[in-house]
Amino acid sequence: MEGPDLGAFSFGLDDLAEAFASLSMFPLFEIAHYILMCQAVRSDSGGLTLSRKHPLANWVCCMLMCSAGGFISSLLLGLPLIGPLSKTPNVLLASAIWYLEFYAPFDLFHKAVTFLPIKLVVVSLKEIRRAHKVPDGIATAAKVHPHGYVAHVVIACVKGAGSGFMLNFQRLVRGKWSPETNQILHPTVVLKECLISAILFTLPTGVLPINQDQLLLLTGIAMVIVKVTLTVTNVGDPFKPIENVLCMPIFGKAEVMAAEKKKKE
Amino acid sequence: MEGPDLGAFSFGLDDLAEAFASLSMFPLFEIAHYILMCQAVRSDSGGLTLSRKHPLANWVCCMLMCSAGGFISSLLLGLPLIGPLSKTPNVLLASAIWYLEFYAPFDLFHKAVTFLPIKLVVVSLKEIRRAHKVPDGIATAAKVHPHGYVAHVVIACVKGAGSGFMLNFQRLVRGKWSPETNQILHPTVVLKECLISAILFTLPTGVLPINQDQLLLLTGIAMVIVKVTLTVTNVGDPFKPIENVLCMPIFGKAEVMAAEKKKKE
Amino acid sequence: MEGPDLGAFSFGLDDLAEAFASLSMFPLFEIAHYILMCQAVRSDSGGLTLSRKHPLANWVCCMLMCSAGGFISSLLLGLPLIGPLSKTPNVLLASAIWYLEFYAPFDLFHKAVTFLPIKLVVVSLKEIRRAHKVPDGIATAAKVHPHGYVAHVVIACVKGAGSGFMLNFQRLVRGKWSPETNQILHPTVVLKECLISAILFTLPTGVLPINQDQLLLLTGIAMVIVKVTLTVTNVGDPFKPIENVLCMPIFGKAEVMAAEKKKKE
Repeated sequence: MEGPDLGAFSFGLDDLAEAFASLSMFPLFEIAHYILMCQAVRSDSGGLTLSRKHPLANWVCCMLMCSAGGFISSLLLGLPLIGPLSKTPNVLLASAIWYLEFYAPFDLFHKAVTFLPIKLVVVSLKEIRRAHKVPDGIATAAKVHPHGYVAHVVIACVKGAGSGFMLNFQRLVRGKWSPETNQILHPTVVLKECLISAILFTLPTGVLPINQDQLLLLTGIAMVIVKVTLTVTNVGDPFKPIENVLCMPIFGKAEVMAAEKKKKE
Repeated sequence: MEGPDLGAFSFGLDDLAEAFASLSMFPLFEIAHYILMCQAVRSDSGGLTLSRKHPLANWVCCMLMCSAGGFISSLLLGLPLIGPLSKTPNVLLASAIWYLEFYAPFDLFHKAVTFLPIKLVVVSLKEIRRAHKVPDGIATAAKVHPHGYVAHVVIACVKGAGSGFMLNFQRLVRGKWSPETNQILHPTVVLKECLISAILFTLPTGVLPINQDQLLLLTGIAMVIVKVTLTVTNVGDPFKPIENVLCMPIFGKAEVMAAEKKKKE
Repeated sequence: MEGPDLGAFSFGLDDLAEAFASLSMFPLFEIAHYILMCQAVRSDSGGLTLSRKHPLANWVCCMLMCSAGGFISSLLLGLPLIGPLSKTPNVLLASAIWYLEFYAPFDLFHKAVTFLPIKLVVVSLKEIRRAHKVPDGIATAAKVHPHGYVAHVVIACVKGAGSGFMLNFQRLVRGKWSPETNQILHPTVVLKECLISAILFTLPTGVLPINQDQLLLLTGIAMVIVKVTLTVTNVGDPFKPIENVLCMPIFGKAEVMAAEKKKKE
């Protein structure tokens, strides 16, 4: 008699996965994303000074971050780079959030959204948006290059973790240039999540025992859990231990580095 | 009996506006533009040394500046970035101006075009070209994104004040990198003019009491007057007083900056 | 009786030129190219440290260099920038070379391909590939802008000497920024070769006494000879003497520079 029960449960899960996959990102999830992007611009060094002295540059920085994935993926796919700015409702919504975040009376908005319980909700919404961006990115890339699987993974990462790639250029707009680091050199946790998720989504049908909707639900839950944990606790990059184990046999021939040092001496 | 007179005058103004709107930019206005762009490259620090030691880089810098609006708007609209270089007559004309500006015998050309009366004519022609570039830019952007009004304004500004955005990249070609400033952080007078003009052109028909040709004539006259005034006198940015009045109530909550300072301490 | 002999020889040369022109670049010539590009990344300062500490950035750098011409020409022609990454076989091949070059046991692969006789073969294959890229680039550009002859030459140079233009951006990925030099400011020998070759290929039919296949054969031979000579001997840029003779009358009015110095004083 367990069969029907399991079936019902499996049906329920399917339903949930399907509903999750068909969630509309606009406006709720976009708002959460815009809030976090404007906060990132504000918390970057000199953010508040910029907002008082150079409101135009401040707005441009926030728009670049809010649509980072859209800008970079458009550039990579040969689509109009200005595309994200042509969605007038999104731009107006992002501009409203930008105004509230920086110029609201008594800084009330900023204080509200950095209040921990609210922050956790915002962060979770944003991670659900990120999870959706990965299959979105693959679908967009597949329209341009149906069999360019490496390209699919790259676009999915750019769509999911675009603000990390945009950071250096956003700083350039505000007159700061920090070439010594970038998200490729020092991959963030969210980039690694997007990379793994994108590879899973690119696998041929049948390799994974679950369908794409279920995979989306799982990656969404995983991303929320990781981000919430990282926000409330002090644990570091959860991928580090795995990397330490894997990198040594694959990349770790230390003799070569020793040889390089010798050459210099 | 004043009616007919007014009508005739109004008819005459319409005619003028229409004639002004249908002015061909090539070759006269383009020549004025190319002269000023090559002068900008020459007067940037180390310009003459560059022209003697690195003629190729010098030519590339001048071409980048001469077609700055074209390059950046092509990039933003997903059109071939090389587009401006594919108009062979324009490139040959710009190259001729480049050669005259830098390598003419006894530097005669440069001395002639920097002679104040001639300079004022050149500057005025260039401003008329700039005024035309704003509705041009809007029309180009509207072909790609018919209802992306923010995108229209951005492209119009890029077409009208493109050389200001290109400056940093032109310097990069000559081995100088000046990330600490850019036209978004420190908007130039011409950028502000283009921004206002672009917003006026983007307004729905009927909001302004004049048609687009008349608006073009008016903005053209305004731009010429501002630029000529700035060239012959020492007055600063004419928009500063308005900004000072407007920015305080919109962006000016100074408490927040004070709070930031406290944090640092 | 010499007529038939000459005819036979001429027929043989035509055949050779045709066979040379129809050589497939994949996989042999591409392998040579990938080897040299990965070596360039490795020999750039800190290359080995990068390969141990940041394998992802290292891989991205190598891919950027391996498809440099493809990336930059796609950007310039408004094609998808990700195009080169969408050719999965090429990317997998380049990744295999990348792995062998950096992480092979006992560094055997690197030692083998830097062994002079093998290196000369690799270098020669790469130069043949470069010779082919010039007419390839012109054909690609002509599809987008049939009569933009300046654009044809630019794209041919980018396809032939793309890695030189990519160098600064590759360094940026690894957290180094070297704005003080670039291939336009200090043209490399290969860029000059590509420029001359591209101009020859762009000339109207009938100006040169040979057809395009024969021209390709000749430029290929010339490029191989120059590169092999530069690899085994210490001679400098073979174009320098010609430049010294030509630049003085065209660009060399030294009075102007003297005038600039006076101004500064």
